[in-house]
Amino acid sequence: MTAYSLGSLLYEGKAKRVYATDQPEVVAVEYKDDATAFNALKKAQLAGKGELNCRISALLFEHLASRGVPTHYLGVGGERWMLCRPVRVIPVEVVIRNIAAGSLCKQMPIEPGTALEPPLLDLYYKDDAYGDPLLTEARLEHLGLVTPQQRRRLEDLARQVNRELLALFGSLGLQLVDFKIELGFTTTGELVVADEISPDTCRLWDRGVADAQDRILDKDRFRQDLGGVVEAYGEVLKRVQGACPEPRVYG
Amino acid sequence: MTAYSLGSLLYEGKAKRVYATDQPEVVAVEYKDDATAFNALKKAQLAGKGELNCRISALLFEHLASRGVPTHYLGVGGERWMLCRPVRVIPVEVVIRNIAAGSLCKQMPIEPGTALEPPLLDLYYKDDAYGDPLLTEARLEHLGLVTPQQRRRLEDLARQVNRELLALFGSLGLQLVDFKIELGFTTTGELVVADEISPDTCRLWDRGVADAQDRILDKDRFRQDLGGVVEAYGEVLKRVQGACPEPRVYG
Repeated sequence: MTAYSLGSLLYEGKAKRVYATDQPEVVAVEYKDDATAFNALKKAQLAGKGELNCRISALLFEHLASRGVPTHYLGVGGERWMLCRPVRVIPVEVVIRNIAAGSLCKQMPIEPGTALEPPLLDLYYKDDAYGDPLLTEARLEHLGLVTPQQRRRLEDLARQVNRELLALFGSLGLQLVDFKIELGFTTTGELVVADEISPDTCRLWDRGVADAQDRILDKDRFRQDLGGVVEAYGEVLKRVQGACPEPRVYG
Repeated sequence: MTAYSLGSLLYEGKAKRVYATDQPEVVAVEYKDDATAFNALKKAQLAGKGELNCRISALLFEHLASRGVPTHYLGVGGERWMLCRPVRVIPVEVVIRNIAAGSLCKQMPIEPGTALEPPLLDLYYKDDAYGDPLLTEARLEHLGLVTPQQRRRLEDLARQVNRELLALFGSLGLQLVDFKIELGFTTTGELVVADEISPDTCRLWDRGVADAQDRILDKDRFRQDLGGVVEAYGEVLKRVQGACPEPRVYG
């Protein structure tokens, strides 16, 4: 099937494993069925989730590429395998919220469901040991993880992703409530979108469903014990695959 | 003793009560002996603390006034009473840290005791129900509590207070580790420093003492059950009263 062979395990996260390949400029990403929430205090195995997230991410990366957004994605390599450029990931999670939901409503007097105009962009320091804390500009500068100029580029790129995904999901009857992305630098210094974009990392509501729980098509089904997690992810896949370029098979 | 008489209770906080007086442009602030920490999960009565904090705050407000920093302070009115201009307090706590300590070191990979250069300025939304969360510029804008221009004035004023207090405490053998201030607008729209400035709101370390616990002269003695809280506050008063103008008696 493939034009590459797997090398050593480079990194294992909560939802993915990253392997070297025999090609120095290619890593292989395996999407796991592990579901975690609340900084991994809640865990489960959801059969099929890895494959669904891999396919949804591949479709969204294809779409972003077609819209000129640089990503680490190179193609797919099997049911739950994605091939990517190796990236030095910046340990900062970028969250953009179009509608208030989740932790934000516990930290600010904003009713869940409130439209946020302009969308709210938050940066979090990606470190489980510190509980992924919110970063101010000054705290980010103290950490020295990016220069002020890199921060602006990172925020601009995240906002561009938001505009593209808002338009795409909007055309599919899905509300993009919020999402998290990670970014990084390729070996040639290009800033690209990395990690994944899936119902694990986006809040998506079905516009055609009025009920506040039934409309949820993302990881909140797992967080809130609503059931039907894999079915919801399957619904997202079904809609997305009609609207994005078919993922290229790498190699 | 006084040129005013007390009116109704306007506000009761964790450490102070604010009363109206018979003069519309004067409120009377009573400093309580109540000590609280960790969002009032820890509580105690410390006899003498209210009087000490009132006297220390009065001395520091006198000093700031002599240095051209606008405050709500008008004078003292008795052992634990301070007279102030009525102020619409902005529900944003401004924290400036010169040395890393406390919660910061649980949220960021910074060793306690690290000098922060430039000093780190953080804004927190003052609301116990939300746990006084950290605010980014964007979150502050969404709350709509201050305009961007007011935010800059507020931050400039807080930095001016830091410079003045650093110099004052430095001359007294005290390290100003960090402090919290609240600011507000007077009835004529002037932005002033409000609330109190005391060992309840500042971290102060005795430069002449090497031991990391023994040098603490602030509320951390209460937070960390180190004992000698009132004695430590008394030591701060002793040093400060030699270096600041004698508090004026109001009226």
